[in-house]
Amino acid sequence: MTVATIRVHLPTSAPSAIDRSYDITVGRGLLPTVGAAVKAAGGRRAVVITDAAIAATHAAAVEIGLRSAGIEATALIVRSGEGSKSITEAGRLWDALAEHAVDRRTHVIAVGGGVVGDLAGFVAATFGRGLACWQVPTTVVAQVDSAIGGKTGINLTAGKNLVGAFWQPHGVIADIDTLATLPAREFVSGFAEVVKYGMILDAAFFSWLEDNVGPLMARDPAALAHAVERSAALKAGVVEQDERELTGLRAVLNYGHTFAHAYETAAGYGTLLHGEAVAIGMARAARLARDLGRVSDDLIARQDQLLLGLGLPVEPPPGVDLPAEALLEVMARDKKAVGGELRFVLPARIGHVELVEGVSTLLVRRALVG
Amino acid sequence: MTVATIRVHLPTSAPSAIDRSYDITVGRGLLPTVGAAVKAAGGRRAVVITDAAIAATHAAAVEIGLRSAGIEATALIVRSGEGSKSITEAGRLWDALAEHAVDRRTHVIAVGGGVVGDLAGFVAATFGRGLACWQVPTTVVAQVDSAIGGKTGINLTAGKNLVGAFWQPHGVIADIDTLATLPAREFVSGFAEVVKYGMILDAAFFSWLEDNVGPLMARDPAALAHAVERSAALKAGVVEQDERELTGLRAVLNYGHTFAHAYETAAGYGTLLHGEAVAIGMARAARLARDLGRVSDDLIARQDQLLLGLGLPVEPPPGVDLPAEALLEVMARDKKAVGGELRFVLPARIGHVELVEGVSTLLVRRALVG
Repeated sequence: MTVATIRVHLPTSAPSAIDRSYDITVGRGLLPTVGAAVKAAGGRRAVVITDAAIAATHAAAVEIGLRSAGIEATALIVRSGEGSKSITEAGRLWDALAEHAVDRRTHVIAVGGGVVGDLAGFVAATFGRGLACWQVPTTVVAQVDSAIGGKTGINLTAGKNLVGAFWQPHGVIADIDTLATLPAREFVSGFAEVVKYGMILDAAFFSWLEDNVGPLMARDPAALAHAVERSAALKAGVVEQDERELTGLRAVLNYGHTFAHAYETAAGYGTLLHGEAVAIGMARAARLARDLGRVSDDLIARQDQLLLGLGLPVEPPPGVDLPAEALLEVMARDKKAVGGELRFVLPARIGHVELVEGVSTLLVRRALVG
Repeated sequence: MTVATIRVHLPTSAPSAIDRSYDITVGRGLLPTVGAAVKAAGGRRAVVITDAAIAATHAAAVEIGLRSAGIEATALIVRSGEGSKSITEAGRLWDALAEHAVDRRTHVIAVGGGVVGDLAGFVAATFGRGLACWQVPTTVVAQVDSAIGGKTGINLTAGKNLVGAFWQPHGVIADIDTLATLPAREFVSGFAEVVKYGMILDAAFFSWLEDNVGPLMARDPAALAHAVERSAALKAGVVEQDERELTGLRAVLNYGHTFAHAYETAAGYGTLLHGEAVAIGMARAARLARDLGRVSDDLIARQDQLLLGLGLPVEPPPGVDLPAEALLEVMARDKKAVGGELRFVLPARIGHVELVEGVSTLLVRRALVG
């Protein structure tokens, strides 16, 4: 008897013959229009997963729109904060979906910030082997970053986002009006990723940001809409080319993030907001690029000035004790380190970054304190 | 200010430009060869997830092969039984993967039956947003059915397989020798799915099974290898055409399963093995087809004879009290019922089935007791 081998031919497509393209809609007064969009996409029932802090406001507006469109809607509310991205909370939502006997025509609508989007997306990706999911981001960072790209996940004790799935939304609907009531620190924090898009991909957008710090900080709707729209388009462009982080292209989005993860971890999660850590991380990355002879002091100055103008830090705040050794140790363990060698996404000029491998820890140490 | 819409173009491919095709290998003495296969596929470390009952035998043989191939291997052992397909157990495995600091070159190897395959596949699908996974099935039902097709999942209190993901393996390696030591009832149970493939897709294979009941029940390796190989090829052929159960084609695999789920649920999970319920379900489905004038008594007789010859039941065993009302109620709730109307995959002839909608409960009731 010989060994038999059967070849299973699968198309590169996962859900074959299904166009998974989707729209990101940015504008004002969009919350009540989500219902019509879900209806047009064939949804018949909806489960709104939302944050306790906005359940009675933004989520309620979405629910009213769903019901107006003739869609039966149920709301599942999760506690505010990163702690909700847990196995326990995912289990509670899975059980609730089972209890509501959802079927393939039930759509999950994530209304909230990054925590709700990541958690609801993961739950939608894994219930019944996949429910349609809509992202309705209500924070700056969610509108410009976390709601776009299909990354979903929950945290383990050992680290953030260790469990998750790629699950592209049916649509992203970003209502600018939800940004009006965000607490100041949370509002500002989201702009670190906005500055990042200018730095990595679009010098003209970076210049526009420099010229519009005032309107943005005054929360002028037209300025916010442009910043969100351009950021979302830039991120979407990267995701289109490297949906699953396989070709390396998506890595450009990690500009500032190797440093940022180190600061977040060493400071203890929650001490710095993610955006604050990213701002500090970009400032450090620019200094590392300068020390490697890749950019001039002028680039550092322009980036620092924009970040500071937006109310973001370029170095750890006083009182946050972060010895270089601890930061380096975290970086060495970071998943972005391959084979123990440090690598970074570093600017070549405003609007363009490059992946740089084999960076000496001596230079990294200098960038941390410089 | 107008509403802006950004179109995100995604290829129908999920992991773009990656060929997800894979091999199912069937033969004797294959456990020690898994290591070389993992090595050839670029694996550098391996986590073997296995069942306590075979950890010291089959899983150990796989581990030795991995180490011979220069691959660092760690074993994670789960308790035998359906109870391990739980959120708790998935959480324990996720934590263990985090503790072992697995990276993208770490492959998960599922060595065991359907429980281990479904659980390990789900954990691999969701850790770090996806680790490579190999299925090394060691039971009949896993070799002919559950290890093939990419369905992974865990159970909720509300129902089986409610949480899961489609996650195609890197390869399936079915070592026929593992079937030699299976307990008799478990061994026999797996043949319900084998008979199913003949019924739904391949009349010649059905005839071959009729002619080889003796060798199969004597666990003759050549006969077992042919049964596994042909079954795996038939299932793979269906999966290739409808990977995510979207076109309806994959539904043919549900022949006998609407009845089977009703029997399993009404009897309480564990009373009947899944294969036993499927055998009874196919017997009932054939009677329903006859009552609808679709097939003759001869088809029922041939199918009954083959099932009984293989030691499988065609009606519920004495002492299992299953009133028709309870069974009908379960079927009405079954996810295969759409809009409350009962639909069934029913034979048209040996080797071919059809989806039949709008079946009256009166006829279903008669098929349950006939």
